[in-house]
Amino acid sequence: MLREHLADGVLRLTLDHAERRNALSEAMMAALQAALDRAAADPAVRVVVIGHAGPAFSAGHDLKELTARRTDADRGRAYFETVMKTCARLMTSVVRLPKPVIAEISGLATAAGCQLVASCDLAVAGEGARFATPGVHIGLFCSTPMVALSRNLAPKHAMEMLLTGETVDAATALRFGLVNRVVPAAELSAETGRLAATIAAKSPATLKIGKEAFYRQVEMDLDAAYAYTAGVMVDNMLIRDAEEGIGAFIEKRPPQWRGA
Amino acid sequence: MLREHLADGVLRLTLDHAERRNALSEAMMAALQAALDRAAADPAVRVVVIGHAGPAFSAGHDLKELTARRTDADRGRAYFETVMKTCARLMTSVVRLPKPVIAEISGLATAAGCQLVASCDLAVAGEGARFATPGVHIGLFCSTPMVALSRNLAPKHAMEMLLTGETVDAATALRFGLVNRVVPAAELSAETGRLAATIAAKSPATLKIGKEAFYRQVEMDLDAAYAYTAGVMVDNMLIRDAEEGIGAFIEKRPPQWRGA
Amino acid sequence: MLREHLADGVLRLTLDHAERRNALSEAMMAALQAALDRAAADPAVRVVVIGHAGPAFSAGHDLKELTARRTDADRGRAYFETVMKTCARLMTSVVRLPKPVIAEISGLATAAGCQLVASCDLAVAGEGARFATPGVHIGLFCSTPMVALSRNLAPKHAMEMLLTGETVDAATALRFGLVNRVVPAAELSAETGRLAATIAAKSPATLKIGKEAFYRQVEMDLDAAYAYTAGVMVDNMLIRDAEEGIGAFIEKRPPQWRGA
Repeated sequence: MLREHLADGVLRLTLDHAERRNALSEAMMAALQAALDRAAADPAVRVVVIGHAGPAFSAGHDLKELTARRTDADRGRAYFETVMKTCARLMTSVVRLPKPVIAEISGLATAAGCQLVASCDLAVAGEGARFATPGVHIGLFCSTPMVALSRNLAPKHAMEMLLTGETVDAATALRFGLVNRVVPAAELSAETGRLAATIAAKSPATLKIGKEAFYRQVEMDLDAAYAYTAGVMVDNMLIRDAEEGIGAFIEKRPPQWRGA
Repeated sequence: MLREHLADGVLRLTLDHAERRNALSEAMMAALQAALDRAAADPAVRVVVIGHAGPAFSAGHDLKELTARRTDADRGRAYFETVMKTCARLMTSVVRLPKPVIAEISGLATAAGCQLVASCDLAVAGEGARFATPGVHIGLFCSTPMVALSRNLAPKHAMEMLLTGETVDAATALRFGLVNRVVPAAELSAETGRLAATIAAKSPATLKIGKEAFYRQVEMDLDAAYAYTAGVMVDNMLIRDAEEGIGAFIEKRPPQWRGA
Repeated sequence: MLREHLADGVLRLTLDHAERRNALSEAMMAALQAALDRAAADPAVRVVVIGHAGPAFSAGHDLKELTARRTDADRGRAYFETVMKTCARLMTSVVRLPKPVIAEISGLATAAGCQLVASCDLAVAGEGARFATPGVHIGLFCSTPMVALSRNLAPKHAMEMLLTGETVDAATALRFGLVNRVVPAAELSAETGRLAATIAAKSPATLKIGKEAFYRQVEMDLDAAYAYTAGVMVDNMLIRDAEEGIGAFIEKRPPQWRGA
């Protein structure tokens, strides 16, 4: 269901349940959450890539799994609450992971699958990648996906996707800021690999400081953001990797980072 | 002054006071506000389009109407306060309307007219459409239009429009995220019609849930946004149209929505 | 170190310390802060342009100056705190300056130098301009630059710059919304001059009102932003330059602004 492969500091997680279009079933969410939790704690992991096997990146929530619980005494309410909380925790875990996360998309990412792309720090798409928040087609507005979408896209772009449910192609996703790069399908894996390797070559301690600061400061007003990040910079200056990195830069030699 | 035409769930409001360039006079704002209030309550209305007759979408506030009150004992302060509150209420009514609102622009939208475009959920422009916040030319900075503008455009784009007062063409507005689509003038009405029809075919109850959630969650921090929207999703799952929509999807048949 | 030239209401500040790549040393920051403070108070200054001599706009903090203090008893902590506070004050002074500030970039703007560009209201770039937040290369994440970057760029664009440290060219900076215009190097000064002159021709009192309102309202929720800016509009209507400007517009004659 979820394959894991670690090499050179890059943990590649591959959503691999093509017959269910990599739906974020309870089992898939649990597998992803566990993998992210391990990645957070494993010093050998410097960067995480979330990719997929099969034509779909992910189709979002598993509708059959949800629908089956409509016969519960509460019409499924308690179950739906659990699933939505599980999913929100998963998406915020991507944001809060102390290591960069890159989405790699060659096919269709819809609903919570599109939300997962938006929740990653970076995203690389193949030319055949497509994106949609189609919940409106089935009477279930993509209200949790919109949280990630509206924090990445201009409002009218997000609203167009949410209100029409229509699919946008990779070039449009690039223009909307949903993905960073679009490359031919044959070059997708190599392009993601290069991007991941570039970041994996940085100090893990520094990446952790920076990623955490980014998502915290963005929710503050300007004065609070500067007061907070000025403190982050001072603390960052005093870690060993900054001393090493700045020293190496001044001495024109490559830095030697400490592990995470 | 304001024509109304309802067909197939789409209410088309046409600003039609060309000799005053569709200025948002007291009378025009009252007419728009009343039409929106009726649209909110009318189950036959599923989507609202705000378009215009004549070369201007809207020139914004009616300067002659404002200037006439400079001879009031308070130099017009009380009147200006009333007008600004009326306008702010109108713009927030567009945002809070429980139905999607699409702006259709073939000419010049300036000042509060440009603000009205920015306040709509979506916007479709003809190739001849142009946009400006030119208050700075006349000593009156477009400070209320900036509220809508700065929530739709990147800061440097909004600031360029606000500080220079210069007019941007449709292609630039598209690049800035102020409009969703630009089409040849001859195709504008058909393009807006297609977009409106696409959305009017969705469940009204679902659109209401989704639009309200969008503008509420965007003002929250990430954790609060997820806590809130997870609850919205659960409630949405339990409405009749989600049951119908998801069932129809699984059974591969078209859904039958309940009215709004 | 910092050249100043005032003509026709436009104060041009030129970072001129090419042998240090216009690093924001203590001396450079003090010179810039003093110049901005004078500009704020000087009615002859209507617009500020921050440009540069030499191949770099600015290389950001002066690493040698910072590193020299690692031998302090506190390993430099107190000094770093002072420098970061000084820099944050400088950047917020650009935002709070009651006059528009335009960055003019023909070369490389990195780290706090890139932050300075992002902090300006507008930016004009020559085709050879380049931008980076490369702190991650040296173990010191660009956590204060990210404050300005993340308030101007889409999150994935900002994150790409911050996590990779890679340099983006002028065309990419334009696409990201980091700069407003890109022109051939030979036309840069003239283009900035035209933009500055356009703005310098406006009412200084109106520009002050509008710029302050912009950065205040953008931190408010929608209702608070409209309540605040409605009041700003009323006050603006009652200043002399709005009366003059609106009168001139109605009478189709050029307005005569009062000084700042």
